Amino acid sequence: MWREVVTHGHKWRRWVTEARSRGRADGGGYAKGVTFPVVGMVGGGQLARMTHEAGIPLGIRFKLLSDTPQDSAAQVVGDVVIGDHRDLDTLREFARDCDVITFDHEHVPIDHLRALEAEGIPVRPGPDALLHAQDKGRMRARLAGLGVPCPRHRIVTDPADVSAFAEEAGGYPVVLKTVRGGYDGKGVWVVRTEAEAADPFRAGVPVLAEEKVEFTRELAANVVRSPHGQAVAYPVVESQQVDGVCDTVIAPAPGLDEELAGQAQRLALTIAAELGVVGHLAVELFETPDGRILVNELAMRPHNSGHWTQDGAVTSQFANHLRAVLDLPLGDPRPRAPWTVMSNVLGGDYPDMYAAYLHCMARDPQLKIHMYGKDVKPGRKVGHVNTCGDDLAEVRERARHAADYLRGTITE
Amino acid sequence: MWREVVTHGHKWRRWVTEARSRGRADGGGYAKGVTFPVVGMVGGGQLARMTHEAGIPLGIRFKLLSDTPQDSAAQVVGDVVIGDHRDLDTLREFARDCDVITFDHEHVPIDHLRALEAEGIPVRPGPDALLHAQDKGRMRARLAGLGVPCPRHRIVTDPADVSAFAEEAGGYPVVLKTVRGGYDGKGVWVVRTEAEAADPFRAGVPVLAEEKVEFTRELAANVVRSPHGQAVAYPVVESQQVDGVCDTVIAPAPGLDEELAGQAQRLALTIAAELGVVGHLAVELFETPDGRILVNELAMRPHNSGHWTQDGAVTSQFANHLRAVLDLPLGDPRPRAPWTVMSNVLGGDYPDMYAAYLHCMARDPQLKIHMYGKDVKPGRKVGHVNTCGDDLAEVRERARHAADYLRGTITE
Repeated sequence: MWREVVTHGHKWRRWVTEARSRGRADGGGYAKGVTFPVVGMVGGGQLARMTHEAGIPLGIRFKLLSDTPQDSAAQVVGDVVIGDHRDLDTLREFARDCDVITFDHEHVPIDHLRALEAEGIPVRPGPDALLHAQDKGRMRARLAGLGVPCPRHRIVTDPADVSAFAEEAGGYPVVLKTVRGGYDGKGVWVVRTEAEAADPFRAGVPVLAEEKVEFTRELAANVVRSPHGQAVAYPVVESQQVDGVCDTVIAPAPGLDEELAGQAQRLALTIAAELGVVGHLAVELFETPDGRILVNELAMRPHNSGHWTQDGAVTSQFANHLRAVLDLPLGDPRPRAPWTVMSNVLGGDYPDMYAAYLHCMARDPQLKIHMYGKDVKPGRKVGHVNTCGDDLAEVRERARHAADYLRGTITE
Repeated sequence: MWREVVTHGHKWRRWVTEARSRGRADGGGYAKGVTFPVVGMVGGGQLARMTHEAGIPLGIRFKLLSDTPQDSAAQVVGDVVIGDHRDLDTLREFARDCDVITFDHEHVPIDHLRALEAEGIPVRPGPDALLHAQDKGRMRARLAGLGVPCPRHRIVTDPADVSAFAEEAGGYPVVLKTVRGGYDGKGVWVVRTEAEAADPFRAGVPVLAEEKVEFTRELAANVVRSPHGQAVAYPVVESQQVDGVCDTVIAPAPGLDEELAGQAQRLALTIAAELGVVGHLAVELFETPDGRILVNELAMRPHNSGHWTQDGAVTSQFANHLRAVLDLPLGDPRPRAPWTVMSNVLGGDYPDMYAAYLHCMARDPQLKIHMYGKDVKPGRKVGHVNTCGDDLAEVRERARHAADYLRGTITE
């Protein structure tokens, strides 16, 4: 819990946790007298896995709520609770001995988070912020209210209404998104005719229509904000998508106008502050041919566009996310190399990625491999690689080669 | 197990592990079809903790044999067996589903390791190498046989024999060491008279006498070697001890003659190859006023003098130790910054180190803190900090300040 305490002669507001020997099925526990806080993370995916990794050196105690014991993070965390994040009693029991709750994904019902908050559990980011990451309709309305540049958009009710929107917004094609539940291209349709616009309405979830922005590339402005308002901005990156899934991220975005980069960072800092985000915020952006940026999506957690920071920045997004949710001073977000490139490793036809380590590691002794312990399924994100260096073309080639070789699409 | 396999069109010798859902008291397991090897680490200290951290991104499955559930590594590892590393049946049962066994410490009886090897379990480093890290008498004899420069030494039988040795070696003071069981200054005596020489003999363990070398400073040459003979050498570092305990490591060793640095690295590579070391080998050295180096101690595991590599080298000693014991190609050992300084955080009178995070992180956003989750006891190593930068004086000051502040010996 938070307390005003005096240590080292100064008065501070900080976490005070009781020393405890915490129960675990296998008898796990902590040394007595160690008063480090417990961060409870909901969701056992790779973001939780990498956040645990970042928390080990800080001595942060990490507790995981995971759907199954086979989930990516559940394989490597000591303190794991298996349960359903949609069940309030499960969440309540999980949170009982946590000092703060944070998230690997955005799928916990907002009402549950409000209930936990009402019971005194710090939830970071909080429900008022997460609302905007869960519901694309609310997100658009709020950003528009803040004067943040966005694609033209409105909630549509049926295919005829989509045509009406197309009329207003310069014609088809139009992008349709279910306001909840989408990620990595799922829940998103690009429709060229009214007939094609029927699908998105079948789910019974409100549908948001957006103009299909003509963009030269996608960017991401990533920031981390703490409860007391400190914030850091990472360099703006270029994010390359393939079939709606992030494929490669280049940090910093090559050739990006300095003024526009600053504008993107300020935009992300403003959104974080206005929406009360605590932790990592990814703002996905379109860069237009006429030199503007428009906000595409928000994510209030560590994000694929920030994976490069593990090896390319002084402080990774995962370490800074933890520092933010604990209201610790944030770490330096600056790059450690002129260029860092992240390429995702997708599951391919070749299931045994470990075999590829021999070639990849021998070819590039500076390569950084990050695997998630996931079953290989075609198209599934099962890992990523980071490369750093002075020469962008060479750094890109190394990342591309390693990702393709691990996937099995090249054999030499 | 090792098999010749053909993947990606090439024939390789590599690990083949069966896909399995591994049992854990809390139902832990791994995704099916993932065929990454299981590294079993004996010993639950901070070296195991940091090796687990380094293994997460590689997707390596990590299994721990720990004395208690409260041990440093046991707090953060998912797959933990609590048991006694001196008991062969415990070791045998632990090793049953591991692809390779490695170590956090040097205290497993050599005969047990030979038994495991005889049963087909790869033990890395193997007993023939570890022998020399466990027994300082054998180590000295072997190094002398290789022509490696060492302090004058011999096994002594009683205080009168110590005086005889002193006579041969230039007089008192003489350094006495029990041949087994010492670390961090324990098991080591500096004696100035025959009367003082009685203590070391009380334990009933053979005692090694060494001349007390006049040295200008201590250095460490750290290398990593794999079973197929690949080896990498980290830059030679300066290691500063306080009361026999490592306090600060500076990488690279300031002002070290290039020729002498190369000699130290070649020496370490030779020792690793001749003794058949697999994994990380730390060679602790004395630098003498007349520009020679003499070998002080060997450690065949990740070592305190290599902690700087976590933040200061392209590949950390922990990642390279794992790669070596799995016979994967080794990672680049080169530094990422002109200077990196590591300072140990010792337990002091002030038990709550988390409170000090506020000051330390706010003062130095580039500071890297590594805490071990250990109970604070005076003089105990409970963590370390790393700082990197261009200006050595500034980098040293930042590490010194953070370590002292965390310990509580300074308050501003």
